[in-house]
Amino acid sequence: MKNKHKVVVIGGVACGPKAAARIKRLNPEADVTILEKGELISYAGCGLPFYLSGEVENHDELMATPTGVVRNPGFFKMVKDVKVKNKTLVKSVDRDNKIVHAVNTDTNESLEFSYDSLVLAVGSNYFVPPIEGVDLKGVNFLQTVEDAMKIKDRSGPLNAKKIVIIGAGLIGLEAAEGLKKQGMEITIIERLDTAMEVLLDPEIAYHLHKELAANDIMLKVGETVLKINDDGSGNVKSVTTNTGEFSADMVLVAVGVRPNIKLAKDMGLEIGKFGAIKVNKNMQTSDPDIYAGGDCVENNNLITGQPSYVPMGSTANKHGRVIADNICGFASEFKGVLGTAICKVFNFNVSRTGLTEKAAKDGGYDYLTVLTPSPDKPHFMKDAKLIIIKFIVDRKTKKLLGAQVAGPGDVAKRIEVAVANIASGSLVTDIAHYDLAYAPPFSPAMDNIITAANIAENKLNGLCNSYTPIEVKEKIEKGDDFIFLDVRAPQEYEQMRIEDPRVKLIPLGKLRSSLDELPKDKEIIPFCKISLRGYEAERILVGEGYSKVKFMDGGIVCWPYKKIA
Amino acid sequence: MKNKHKVVVIGGVACGPKAAARIKRLNPEADVTILEKGELISYAGCGLPFYLSGEVENHDELMATPTGVVRNPGFFKMVKDVKVKNKTLVKSVDRDNKIVHAVNTDTNESLEFSYDSLVLAVGSNYFVPPIEGVDLKGVNFLQTVEDAMKIKDRSGPLNAKKIVIIGAGLIGLEAAEGLKKQGMEITIIERLDTAMEVLLDPEIAYHLHKELAANDIMLKVGETVLKINDDGSGNVKSVTTNTGEFSADMVLVAVGVRPNIKLAKDMGLEIGKFGAIKVNKNMQTSDPDIYAGGDCVENNNLITGQPSYVPMGSTANKHGRVIADNICGFASEFKGVLGTAICKVFNFNVSRTGLTEKAAKDGGYDYLTVLTPSPDKPHFMKDAKLIIIKFIVDRKTKKLLGAQVAGPGDVAKRIEVAVANIASGSLVTDIAHYDLAYAPPFSPAMDNIITAANIAENKLNGLCNSYTPIEVKEKIEKGDDFIFLDVRAPQEYEQMRIEDPRVKLIPLGKLRSSLDELPKDKEIIPFCKISLRGYEAERILVGEGYSKVKFMDGGIVCWPYKKIA
Repeated sequence: MKNKHKVVVIGGVACGPKAAARIKRLNPEADVTILEKGELISYAGCGLPFYLSGEVENHDELMATPTGVVRNPGFFKMVKDVKVKNKTLVKSVDRDNKIVHAVNTDTNESLEFSYDSLVLAVGSNYFVPPIEGVDLKGVNFLQTVEDAMKIKDRSGPLNAKKIVIIGAGLIGLEAAEGLKKQGMEITIIERLDTAMEVLLDPEIAYHLHKELAANDIMLKVGETVLKINDDGSGNVKSVTTNTGEFSADMVLVAVGVRPNIKLAKDMGLEIGKFGAIKVNKNMQTSDPDIYAGGDCVENNNLITGQPSYVPMGSTANKHGRVIADNICGFASEFKGVLGTAICKVFNFNVSRTGLTEKAAKDGGYDYLTVLTPSPDKPHFMKDAKLIIIKFIVDRKTKKLLGAQVAGPGDVAKRIEVAVANIASGSLVTDIAHYDLAYAPPFSPAMDNIITAANIAENKLNGLCNSYTPIEVKEKIEKGDDFIFLDVRAPQEYEQMRIEDPRVKLIPLGKLRSSLDELPKDKEIIPFCKISLRGYEAERILVGEGYSKVKFMDGGIVCWPYKKIA
Repeated sequence: MKNKHKVVVIGGVACGPKAAARIKRLNPEADVTILEKGELISYAGCGLPFYLSGEVENHDELMATPTGVVRNPGFFKMVKDVKVKNKTLVKSVDRDNKIVHAVNTDTNESLEFSYDSLVLAVGSNYFVPPIEGVDLKGVNFLQTVEDAMKIKDRSGPLNAKKIVIIGAGLIGLEAAEGLKKQGMEITIIERLDTAMEVLLDPEIAYHLHKELAANDIMLKVGETVLKINDDGSGNVKSVTTNTGEFSADMVLVAVGVRPNIKLAKDMGLEIGKFGAIKVNKNMQTSDPDIYAGGDCVENNNLITGQPSYVPMGSTANKHGRVIADNICGFASEFKGVLGTAICKVFNFNVSRTGLTEKAAKDGGYDYLTVLTPSPDKPHFMKDAKLIIIKFIVDRKTKKLLGAQVAGPGDVAKRIEVAVANIASGSLVTDIAHYDLAYAPPFSPAMDNIITAANIAENKLNGLCNSYTPIEVKEKIEKGDDFIFLDVRAPQEYEQMRIEDPRVKLIPLGKLRSSLDELPKDKEIIPFCKISLRGYEAERILVGEGYSKVKFMDGGIVCWPYKKIA
């Protein structure tokens, strides 16, 4: 298609430039203008924590193409034939006459832009919690390049040494690593019970906590910030929580973002129930000539079929493409999100997609879980590292509701397989048939995720029975009587064990000859390091006529409570 | 289920032990015996090259569980209640009376084993090419632990320094790296035109050749070994090919394996058209009481629907599970293979699944290809590394026929996504919608494979047009007249360029203002480093009314021919 269609894009970070560039590729005669309120455009917001760490030395790199050309307005004009007006703040939109009213923030000049199609890619704003002292000097947020530069100035030239980070979500954790590498002393205060609580179940979050502790990051969970304290000169001095006071010469508030919907509301566009702009599958708002994408819109959750708010740079890019297609007359749909996320925290990688167990329970699903820790390569490869896979499986549909993969090893590969499996509408058991790529530098002969799928199949077919570590802990706390059967070798037991009077050690190799030590009328819960042998023990005992046996999923590796070492 | 079903498993390496162990888990009263002709059982054959390199120090590690317990007959008896008879060579099977006749290779004692179900997991044998001198001392193969020990003895205590490897397939390449790390001087002779020719297309293999050269491995392709020469005392001295003589004090013959079908043939079982044992989806041979799995059977190719012979440790394990299920009365099917493979060669990773372009062409498919090289992470991450994705897409079904992912970066993750996509029967364009896991340490905001899927979609919809580098080279060789338009920056051109009178440099940023240099009646083939700008240039020129424009896929990075640097 070729015509002089006029497109105005409001927002110049991710979705906006993507949509603009593709519109010009599809319709070279289109007249496309991007309006951006800030100075900088088309930058990689997700790279900001790596700018803090020094991994990215110059913030220009965040705005450059892979060959190093900075994507500034000149670049967009020359290469893309897209006009970019930065420092241009949109004040209102006249939908009847299809005119955008804006102002140049440098000159205060009033500007008008008429459009045939309008794209709202206005992003999100960080949430400013209503805490006393949140406006003190040294209290920072992290969303724009300018924000990151402020933090760097304070930690560098201004010599801040102690930082309190409020919020242990993705941004808080990535920033913690970045600032730790700058030599700062770091405390993270999290209101919920674990880091990344909304994204992870406790068995996984527990390992993340261990990694933070191992890297001298103090994480306080279940703790509420009451006040940020002034040093008397308008600078931050400390943070007061419900349990104490933490001194700080810098605070980073990272408690999430909220969609930027002011303009959309003013324009009378429909807002969804999660408070973001409502769009259809073509990314059209309630005004069919106005599209919206990126952090300002709601997305369909592919598991629940419900709207959700999951802002993500990868999603924003997909939105941009769909918007461009539809504006140029190519029918195109954005299907939805799974809430996939991944994060590197020092030497620990954590990834997730779909629903957590908590969310599955709250959603009323009849589900089972699989928890399988094992090396990401054959154990004989020196660089083999642990990864833990957790599956949440819908018993009715036999489909994955969600997956979490975490550990020092290669988690990214496995979470992508789970994502592709869910997105395809396949069964969890289909994973076991995938002809995945096997060679020792990359994976075990039975890839970890194939093992997880096989365990899911066993459970769906009633061929093995297990408790989660959390369920076992609950049984202990209720005072249930059972034999907590550790089937590891004595030397493994010496190195690390669970201390409880119910624990009994019978190495797997001796189990068949030690049955007289195990009464048939008592419940038995076998486990080992990762519960491969625990499962084997369950099978042996069931085979010997024991009827009350369930192994503990994930073994002692996934026991998120106290261990004796 | 519980009954005294008698199962005899012939073969104790991968599929056999897997089937045996699961049978006991499903039916604890089953009477299961493994017969293995060698001494060692349940070892990781795929780990042998890493034993050569020294990565695996002790060959026992190849037979150990992740906690270090060696899987010997005692282990199988104690833990799995499976009887293992090693050094037990099966001579014949009496199908009418269901009796296996064997002999102990140490004592020559004759043995008989009756069965209700029989499992053939007899593996493959390396192919011994009919070359004079192949039986000389110092000519080795690599399939068993014993083979690997022989090679290590020769390279270590016997001080072999120069090795000729015949065959540049997976085993030959992995062994080359392993032996190079031992300080050996290595020449690889390959009969076909590239390394891994059956598995890769030339644009990908070309990069593999470069990596071998960079690591001082001499690779001779398109070269036939005529003779292995004797030093006069029965030891190898050199290898003569059609072009010359290569001195060697050791030779490794790695020209593939053949299914071990002697026993099956003697028993009168049906053999498939690829010369391996024919099995149905339940892994049953033509005798319903006899199952077969692992390297001795044919597999259904999921793309072509035809039988194929693709021996792989990962597949053998899957077979073992399916066999156990069916023997124990749980209906279970093995669906088939994609011929997925992955290999690390020094700092280059190469992976593939499905059909190559060559195979697609030979198969008569109407296909298109995508070739997209780019960093595996945002370019601002210091450890971002190149990966190249090649897609072969069926124009009719819009499904992937095959994919190749190669480069120093993270290729494994992307090939798994392709595998899951194909296995699910999804469209290639569905990949573009996958909510893959994004964070800068793991991938760009638009993952490389999403970009590849988007390009495939553009091509399927006629929204961009390209030549492959191979097609462009063919046009040059035919003497076609066209403008080979390099749209990179002058400094990139200085660093590396294609030398041909057709090449013309107009940086992308100047293209819109340089149209008078480009006649409209001449064919124009734009390209850049990776052809993202090449594609952009195509769009600009098409927009300006040029009708004969196709960019070159993959850019100069994927140009597998001579470059000036």
